[in-house]
Amino acid sequence: MTRLEERIRRDGKVKDGSILKVDSFLNHQMDIGLFEDIADEFLRLFGDDNVTKILTIEASGIGIACIVAQRFKCPVIFAKKTKTKNIEGEVYATKVESFTHGQIYDIIVSKEFLKAEDRVLIIDDFLANGAALSGLVSLVTAAGATLVGAGIAIEKAFQPGGEMLRAQGIRIESLARIKSMGKDGSIEFC
Amino acid sequence: MTRLEERIRRDGKVKDGSILKVDSFLNHQMDIGLFEDIADEFLRLFGDDNVTKILTIEASGIGIACIVAQRFKCPVIFAKKTKTKNIEGEVYATKVESFTHGQIYDIIVSKEFLKAEDRVLIIDDFLANGAALSGLVSLVTAAGATLVGAGIAIEKAFQPGGEMLRAQGIRIESLARIKSMGKDGSIEFC
Repeated sequence: MTRLEERIRRDGKVKDGSILKVDSFLNHQMDIGLFEDIADEFLRLFGDDNVTKILTIEASGIGIACIVAQRFKCPVIFAKKTKTKNIEGEVYATKVESFTHGQIYDIIVSKEFLKAEDRVLIIDDFLANGAALSGLVSLVTAAGATLVGAGIAIEKAFQPGGEMLRAQGIRIESLARIKSMGKDGSIEFC
Repeated sequence: MTRLEERIRRDGKVKDGSILKVDSFLNHQMDIGLFEDIADEFLRLFGDDNVTKILTIEASGIGIACIVAQRFKCPVIFAKKTKTKNIEGEVYATKVESFTHGQIYDIIVSKEFLKAEDRVLIIDDFLANGAALSGLVSLVTAAGATLVGAGIAIEKAFQPGGEMLRAQGIRIESLARIKSMGKDGSIEFC
């Protein structure tokens, strides 16, 4: 998606050749106009798949997921990273190892909101090692729901997550796929 | 706001007479159509205040904030609860004590995205003891920005946050104000 790639080139910052900071428009400050373009693109890609639920993970996936859900006219569920007082009863749970935070945590979704009859589109801002996405796929599988696919804003294609999950037969559509990043701050797209 | 009050009555669940679970439409599963009505109401209330930034806090405020920002045609910033590898450099920070989680944590916003010339509308899903909102106000003050006010979906008016912050001269608009909740699950609005 050209507009997203241009924005990454203009405002993304490469740190240490492997970390891409896009917090001026994607995951700290959020440019909702850009999210609308992203949502339009996901609607074009998955609009015929009878999606009934958008699934994402807190926190930075929520914004894009909500604008996407607006297009699909369906609810969003966000997987939570810890069990709080406000979630109780039966949940689907799985463990995720965070690349960004360097720790393992549980993600959970209430069984009440993810049903066998659901057709789920997973939405997230980033795909790198695939840990979060893999966890979300596990939750969909545990619910016996149908996974339509995953819509990702930015995929670091030089990390193994995308290849690993596509090899499992999962349809992944990434709007900007980064082939490489240089220590000089350069970014090359696939 | 009638539609929100009706939804709380229909789908909200009162636990132990003090906890209100609205996770079927507000803060786990999210009803984007309802968020659009909420956003329209905040636009009616704050639409003449030249808002330049919507500020919220992860995670459950992000969804509503994004739909509100769509109306105001301005970016969202969400305060983060922990310092991650992906935020570095100068941040505004303050401590918040969570009622839900029973712990104290730091919230931070990058100085890059909150400027003295900004006119900030804070958006959040809940106001109870006012800890999170008070923290967000501190961040706005630290930036020297103008606080337009706070738009809250649900205020537990029987807890002290709203009164405390209004006494400081902060304009708070809550779309559903709960006067009391009974151990029998009943909900009375102001």
